[in-house]
Amino acid sequence: MKTYFFPDRKDWKALLQRPTFDASSLIQKVQTVLADVKQNGDAAVKKYTQDFDGVNINALEVSEQEINEAATLLSNELKQAIQTAAVNIKLFHSKQIATPETIETMPGIQCWRKSIGIEKVGIYIPGGSAPLFSTVLMLGIPAGIAGCKEIILCSPPNKEGKLHPAIIYAAQLVGITKLYKVGGVQAIAALAYGTETIPQVYKIFGPGNQYVTCAKTLIQQEGIAIDMPAGPSEVCVMADESCNAAFVAADLLSQAEHGADSQVLLVAFSEEMVNKVNDEIEKQLKELSRKEIAVKALANSKAIIVNNIEEAIDLVNEYAAEHLIISCNNAETVAEKIINAGSVFIGNYSPESVGDYASGTNHTLPTNGFAKAYSGVSVDSFVKKITYQKLTQQGLQHIAQTVEVMAAAEGLDAHQKAVRVRSEK
Amino acid sequence: MKTYFFPDRKDWKALLQRPTFDASSLIQKVQTVLADVKQNGDAAVKKYTQDFDGVNINALEVSEQEINEAATLLSNELKQAIQTAAVNIKLFHSKQIATPETIETMPGIQCWRKSIGIEKVGIYIPGGSAPLFSTVLMLGIPAGIAGCKEIILCSPPNKEGKLHPAIIYAAQLVGITKLYKVGGVQAIAALAYGTETIPQVYKIFGPGNQYVTCAKTLIQQEGIAIDMPAGPSEVCVMADESCNAAFVAADLLSQAEHGADSQVLLVAFSEEMVNKVNDEIEKQLKELSRKEIAVKALANSKAIIVNNIEEAIDLVNEYAAEHLIISCNNAETVAEKIINAGSVFIGNYSPESVGDYASGTNHTLPTNGFAKAYSGVSVDSFVKKITYQKLTQQGLQHIAQTVEVMAAAEGLDAHQKAVRVRSEK
Repeated sequence: MKTYFFPDRKDWKALLQRPTFDASSLIQKVQTVLADVKQNGDAAVKKYTQDFDGVNINALEVSEQEINEAATLLSNELKQAIQTAAVNIKLFHSKQIATPETIETMPGIQCWRKSIGIEKVGIYIPGGSAPLFSTVLMLGIPAGIAGCKEIILCSPPNKEGKLHPAIIYAAQLVGITKLYKVGGVQAIAALAYGTETIPQVYKIFGPGNQYVTCAKTLIQQEGIAIDMPAGPSEVCVMADESCNAAFVAADLLSQAEHGADSQVLLVAFSEEMVNKVNDEIEKQLKELSRKEIAVKALANSKAIIVNNIEEAIDLVNEYAAEHLIISCNNAETVAEKIINAGSVFIGNYSPESVGDYASGTNHTLPTNGFAKAYSGVSVDSFVKKITYQKLTQQGLQHIAQTVEVMAAAEGLDAHQKAVRVRSEK
Repeated sequence: MKTYFFPDRKDWKALLQRPTFDASSLIQKVQTVLADVKQNGDAAVKKYTQDFDGVNINALEVSEQEINEAATLLSNELKQAIQTAAVNIKLFHSKQIATPETIETMPGIQCWRKSIGIEKVGIYIPGGSAPLFSTVLMLGIPAGIAGCKEIILCSPPNKEGKLHPAIIYAAQLVGITKLYKVGGVQAIAALAYGTETIPQVYKIFGPGNQYVTCAKTLIQQEGIAIDMPAGPSEVCVMADESCNAAFVAADLLSQAEHGADSQVLLVAFSEEMVNKVNDEIEKQLKELSRKEIAVKALANSKAIIVNNIEEAIDLVNEYAAEHLIISCNNAETVAEKIINAGSVFIGNYSPESVGDYASGTNHTLPTNGFAKAYSGVSVDSFVKKITYQKLTQQGLQHIAQTVEVMAAAEGLDAHQKAVRVRSEK
């Protein structure tokens, strides 16, 4: 980590800038796959699965046998952990359902709003080194609570043409309706356009590599909704003298192990604290299996020393971290002043990893400073809210003059007329 | 309107398809303006205002004098109408504020979620034939309720270098913090990147022509949030024998007058009813000032005759109209079965134009079938929701095993370690 001492406010923006990734070199490749799957459906999906995942898949859908088998392949310990996490996630998310309330804005004018689950949603779970069954919980549970009717999961098969049993187990647990062994751009294309086997959906969720991210961006332009724009995962830790340097180091490392492009930011109040944390990082690094990845991520990471807590708050609000850990005195009071962050972890016993798995909050969060305008995934992400209005004849009389005057001033006669034809009656 | 008789379900998708507009021919032009404003700020904004709006603007910001003057240039009748509409819109939207609730998912594990207004938002109001002051209310009011700190409005100047006083008046009424006389792509660029005069914002709202829409799509790819994808405005009317053909015709015309590309769809149960509505359209058309526009829109519009109400409901759910008017028996029961629509107007006395102006609901709604996944604008659109978790040392003990087992199974040691280093203490 490079250390920055009391940087000037005018330099913050540049200092906090994330590395930009130029996706333009991928666009043509991704567009080719999208167009091919749109045109040729399953045949194209199978071809790219052979090309990119190196496996020849006959049946794209995960079979009932594979589903039944999954639970038998996992330890009871892991199944219990997944169940416990699911209970907490369900508890937290079930409070996000809004009940409609009718508002009579004027006598005889009733207005209300109702949340309705998006009928068909797609969940993408990446393959690669780790089977991200936790993300199955984080997306599948709110989808179920929202009342989505079709919840389709796509994830790339391994060399044996299978999904990891923990992914299948988590999917079953949360009520995913269909599972397909398809990954990469071909999965996003199949979900966006539909194929003979894979149903088209209206919104696509989930993390992925740069190709998947690029595909999501492109299909969003065609009107398919996506969860949010994506960037590398990141954590910011604010640490004063009340922190435990070993805990802070462990939190920074748990972010750094995600990928070489992970962002790690330490905001501290003294060089001494930064040194202590660095010493702990050195010590803990040795024991990590993903040490090499973490070392690369740390090379691009920053420790920033600021003058006081107010400056620290302003700085982290400017950064808008995906995960913000507050290991400071009066951490809860500090948390109240945070206006830009994905998820906030308060105090010395709230590591990011509890939110990643099991505290109950969602781990699909805005990266890359997007927390200034975007929220993490919640039940809201899986519903659309329809508004309704019902006017009585008398209700219309109350508002007729207002609508007619405004419509006339905007030069829209027919709008005026639609009220007048009724009030003349 | 072309009439379709009892179309087969398998043909619905094609029948309900909106005309597609290929924006690719605009992209290069739009990118040039975006890049120029990003690079050259105010100077570029002024240059394009001269080029596209034909007016040389010295001061981009609307002056205090212009603001004070605006109210004096409007009739009391119009000011009263704007105020009445604002009261209803405020009433309806103020109920959309969610109060945070803390959930203890396990003893010692507290989780909650808080809505925080997006700090800086931009509102774009198009110029052209009609001054859309109603849209100022529809975007400014929820922004204020959400607690956005900077609410920036851009709208193109007229040939005298001014904004319409009704736009200025509405902006003042709802608490817009700054107004700029800038329109088109240069306005979107200024809001996205900031200039010497115009502040950068995190999310951009508002309708616009194809250039503005294209600019919003492009800046969205750079991480600036936008309200929703855009398409031509549209209405669908479901009308059975309980409807009043004159009312239905007036509603179809009030949509048709918006633009030649407006979409109008009538779903009926008999040819007789379609004929009655067509006769009324002919009659009412004669009196409209925007007759030519309406005639063009109607030429592309469709009347679909279906067998029964269940089929009608399925059809309109497949269409996912921006505005859906239900002029049928038991309209409220029918409305309960609608799962895809922007806003629903129930019964014979609820014309679309009341929602456009003053019933209280928002008129910024998903077009083009986007209602399958998107909601209309609401207070939700102007906030982001941050999640929080606070664990006691004991709370962490309750969840430690779960997190450690899951992290290990995902191959993420450092995540496991971040818990263990704390529980070992």
